[in-house]
Amino acid sequence: MIHVVLFEPEIPQNTGNIIRTCMATNSILHLIEPLGFSMDEKHLKRSGMDYIKDTEIHIHKNWKEFVEENPSDNYYFMTRYAKKAPSEFDFTECKGDIYLILGKESTGIDKAILKDYMDKGMRLPMVANARSLNLSNCAAIIVYEVLRQLGYPNLSKTEQIKGEDFLENLQLD
Amino acid sequence: MIHVVLFEPEIPQNTGNIIRTCMATNSILHLIEPLGFSMDEKHLKRSGMDYIKDTEIHIHKNWKEFVEENPSDNYYFMTRYAKKAPSEFDFTECKGDIYLILGKESTGIDKAILKDYMDKGMRLPMVANARSLNLSNCAAIIVYEVLRQLGYPNLSKTEQIKGEDFLENLQLD
Repeated sequence: MIHVVLFEPEIPQNTGNIIRTCMATNSILHLIEPLGFSMDEKHLKRSGMDYIKDTEIHIHKNWKEFVEENPSDNYYFMTRYAKKAPSEFDFTECKGDIYLILGKESTGIDKAILKDYMDKGMRLPMVANARSLNLSNCAAIIVYEVLRQLGYPNLSKTEQIKGEDFLENLQLD
Repeated sequence: MIHVVLFEPEIPQNTGNIIRTCMATNSILHLIEPLGFSMDEKHLKRSGMDYIKDTEIHIHKNWKEFVEENPSDNYYFMTRYAKKAPSEFDFTECKGDIYLILGKESTGIDKAILKDYMDKGMRLPMVANARSLNLSNCAAIIVYEVLRQLGYPNLSKTEQIKGEDFLENLQLD
């Protein structure tokens, strides 16, 4: 199972988009407080759409509580300070659940947390003068990189029904 | 060179996030009209941030004009109707530029266009009852899948300067 962990997220649209990614990939979402929005926020609901009710979301008071409730050797951190791309890690070697941890939009993950995990830090390669990608884009990229390595477990490669109908109609054209 | 092609995009925040991805990856962006927003739209500018001025953006009146100006055998389409994941294509075999084409948020790419290219259709595997991911997330995933296959050409694996300072400071802690 993949877990996406957002450390103190600030922008509701990003968390909404990430909820959509989690629902689509059967991933569990963790939000570590403080959040920059309420869970009733209209932007969150708009970007999360009807996927919110189908997504397993855990809200934690702080980092310490998250760690206590989710002990694992498989914490991976997305951070600008890392030196390896996600694709340089071999996620097939992970035993048990995988936790993909992303920091707040403005300042990332607290350095006091990060320094204990720099061997599990990931950074997306980008041009030298770019600072970062959008947070929900980062989350989507690493979730799908892990899924690619694992062979997209329990996911459907084709859309159900509609795709078939479309293809049949195409052949009639 | 990677080109991201948005067919009639509707939501300015998505295009803004994609501009950010294009700037960070040295990709060229094409927008095919009609657009659901003006290029001066505040949401576009907010999500595109200061990356807009550093991104090569071409606006085309319609699909036909885009094709005429960008002839290529390497058009790849993101569509719910496809049956292969992006990672099942071998982008290292492409000669010349690669075009990653994504349809509008509401209804995707026109079927009349799509039917000529179904062998180059890509779909992200997802749970059977999910409809789609956010458009900017889809774009980010496929751009980084192509970049992964190509070995992240001309991109930096480490952040310049700041990362070094941070690591040095860490060691002093």
